[in-house]
Amino acid sequence: MSLVRRTAPLCLVVVCAGILLAPPVHTQSPPRPSSWLDPYRETAARLMQAATADDFAWRRLAELTDTYGHRLSGSDNLQRAVGWSLETMRRDGLENVRAEPVMVPRWVRGRESADIVHPPQHTLAFLSLGGSVGTPAGGLEADVVPVASFDELRARASEVKGRIVLFNAPFTTYSDTVTYRTNSARVASQMGAVATLVRGVGPTGLRTPHTGSVQYGMGVTPIPAGSVAAEDADRIVRLTAAGTRVRIRLTMEARTESDAMSANVVGEIRGRERPNEVVVLGGHLDSWDVGAGASDDAVGCIVTWEAARLMARLGIRPRRTVRIVLWTNEENGLRGATAYATTHAAHAADHVFALESDSGVFEPASLGFSGSAGARSLMRDVTALLSPLGLSELVAGGGGADIGPIAQAGNAPMMAYLGNPSRYFAIHHTPADTVERIAPQEVSRAAAAIAVIAYVVAEMPERMPR
Amino acid sequence: MSLVRRTAPLCLVVVCAGILLAPPVHTQSPPRPSSWLDPYRETAARLMQAATADDFAWRRLAELTDTYGHRLSGSDNLQRAVGWSLETMRRDGLENVRAEPVMVPRWVRGRESADIVHPPQHTLAFLSLGGSVGTPAGGLEADVVPVASFDELRARASEVKGRIVLFNAPFTTYSDTVTYRTNSARVASQMGAVATLVRGVGPTGLRTPHTGSVQYGMGVTPIPAGSVAAEDADRIVRLTAAGTRVRIRLTMEARTESDAMSANVVGEIRGRERPNEVVVLGGHLDSWDVGAGASDDAVGCIVTWEAARLMARLGIRPRRTVRIVLWTNEENGLRGATAYATTHAAHAADHVFALESDSGVFEPASLGFSGSAGARSLMRDVTALLSPLGLSELVAGGGGADIGPIAQAGNAPMMAYLGNPSRYFAIHHTPADTVERIAPQEVSRAAAAIAVIAYVVAEMPERMPR
Repeated sequence: MSLVRRTAPLCLVVVCAGILLAPPVHTQSPPRPSSWLDPYRETAARLMQAATADDFAWRRLAELTDTYGHRLSGSDNLQRAVGWSLETMRRDGLENVRAEPVMVPRWVRGRESADIVHPPQHTLAFLSLGGSVGTPAGGLEADVVPVASFDELRARASEVKGRIVLFNAPFTTYSDTVTYRTNSARVASQMGAVATLVRGVGPTGLRTPHTGSVQYGMGVTPIPAGSVAAEDADRIVRLTAAGTRVRIRLTMEARTESDAMSANVVGEIRGRERPNEVVVLGGHLDSWDVGAGASDDAVGCIVTWEAARLMARLGIRPRRTVRIVLWTNEENGLRGATAYATTHAAHAADHVFALESDSGVFEPASLGFSGSAGARSLMRDVTALLSPLGLSELVAGGGGADIGPIAQAGNAPMMAYLGNPSRYFAIHHTPADTVERIAPQEVSRAAAAIAVIAYVVAEMPERMPR
Repeated sequence: MSLVRRTAPLCLVVVCAGILLAPPVHTQSPPRPSSWLDPYRETAARLMQAATADDFAWRRLAELTDTYGHRLSGSDNLQRAVGWSLETMRRDGLENVRAEPVMVPRWVRGRESADIVHPPQHTLAFLSLGGSVGTPAGGLEADVVPVASFDELRARASEVKGRIVLFNAPFTTYSDTVTYRTNSARVASQMGAVATLVRGVGPTGLRTPHTGSVQYGMGVTPIPAGSVAAEDADRIVRLTAAGTRVRIRLTMEARTESDAMSANVVGEIRGRERPNEVVVLGGHLDSWDVGAGASDDAVGCIVTWEAARLMARLGIRPRRTVRIVLWTNEENGLRGATAYATTHAAHAADHVFALESDSGVFEPASLGFSGSAGARSLMRDVTALLSPLGLSELVAGGGGADIGPIAQAGNAPMMAYLGNPSRYFAIHHTPADTVERIAPQEVSRAAAAIAVIAYVVAEMPERMPR
């Protein structure tokens, strides 16, 4: 459908930022809901009602992930998903729908296997890490040195030369343990290791391997780097602890080919009064090449896109422009984010607010926010509108890898829609990242929340303070 | 250690079977514990104490599954596990330790893959079914016809020729849904299908595929048969329901080679008074060639073997012989069970009781029993001794694939140690069947229960009634 050019109810309330920024007055009676929001309540309710009336958003997520599968940068699958997104945004009635071209790295997994050959014989649940080099064509074979930390590696430096190092750091949080995936090959290579294996960065699943990026760093000889399921790491550790020598054969065809053409997909609801001021929302369309990239991050694309689709369908045109961006290459290069910030550098200051959904929508979800105290106070008021969705708490830490560059350039407040991390990291970068793990109402409620936030921030008379 | 030839406390209680078989007398006061068990209580308590004092049994399970991995019939891994079992039983002080040779089928999985090539491109989580033929060397490609049942297949018979049939029966219980894994290739082949895929026989996991046997039947053209993860079956069904043609490429090297030498591993505690009367306990040492075959069925081997090991260690020599059998080839041929029944046919009637542990030890566990009312009544008394283990209920349905032939020939009462089926079937025949999923105390308590049952049944003055 095309955009019906009805305008939102005219906002007559002029708010005073000074009052809004003052600390709340504590009285005996419960605080009165912020009256500056009154003009937005009806439209917010309509958006929430429309978003949660059916499972449209979930079905669109299934259509994307079922039809196009995983969408690694440089893959045909991603190119097809870009084409489908452009076509579908236009059908939705979004405006200025366009592909903003970006050259992206093309890493190819190829065939891969990892086997314990002594004691014979056990095939590991294994995934090469994105960006890894491959082994020689015939594979490589070496004994394993398991370590639980970088400190232990340094303590055992004399044992590492010619060996495969297994980094077996138990999963605590993603931010605490992802360093082993990212940095282990660089560190172990410098000590003479021939390859590294990393315990999957996630909780123990069902022999579930986790992939993700490895980084070698300048001047370091790149060595093959892969990840094994938690159970396989445990097995190697048990065997070596019992004094059994563990020898592994790795065969990896992983390689990096020439950069490929890709694109950020952009669609808008143009602002009725201040079209140059932009509320930017989005997720990333690319994914790892295992699973279907449903939670990471097709769902982030769908729930942010829904904000614009619902505005188009309900004839809501806020004061400012609402721009949806489905970024490319978040997973292994951030070229989409970089290109967006470069292309729009001259208009960075016009980005009044940026929201990314790249942590899934598993409930209980929360909203992370980064911005000035004034912006936070306003946003706390806005999120009070979301209480029908069971989502009204604002936590620290807004942002996202894709919105970061432009928001920092424009000094814009940032928000992250944060799905429940336990459920998210259980399937993060794994073959199990598929659509059926996400409940339709989780998708709908995320879309509803993001639509309301985007609407109010795009509609409020003064732009959100930096 | 060798067996210390201390005898169990001499049993002076002569029980009257007639009294024991009478229906319980219902009174207002709670029933008094069966006094015929009094002479066994102390030894039963010692066995339970010794079994649960540490994690010896779990560590042995880990040693077996870590060192020898999965143990498919005909594999080197299984041969090595047979050798280790014989050596370890001798070290435990078991008697008459021997390998009883059995020729077993040798099915080889080879490389395999299944991809949705239209809409491009998605790799399925796939396992060939055991016993399946392979595809032609270049693979085969065909459109998919998904059906939810054999009835639906028959209703759509005209669509099947030249197609791949996906049997997408939702998992309810194993016994209700395993028929699709076993029989779908036979039925679909008769209708002209070129291959079959079966939704994994188990609950939805984390893209977890389940293997297991397929049977073609006489006179049926064997077609390649595999199993896909629940999520992949769901995806195919969603796509076809939306009108999208789904085309799959299958490449399977699966083949059956010449029979291989294997063995049932046997060890005993010889009976002090009636050595020819045998209480037979065991599990099967073979497994599917994915995972480590920990719950299916290394743990069944370990917990039954523990009964004899603990008797040897504690110097308990019951009246009758306690025989441990680690059967071979339960998974794809039952040649071990058949060979045992044939080899011991002349002594079938001397098998007074048979217990198999082949349903895991996940708690809450239960005990299944099949036998006469008289035997059941006695066994109900015996299991009352197990209340410290949280295990005192007897349910219907004792038996097991390995003990079935000999127990039926000898008309012996049968018992099954039954682990929690939800946890068991979540990992059944999958790569996730590994030792860390089982808690040490689950192994210890199963061993304790089986040791007590074996001891009392081997010690009681009159043999358990048929």
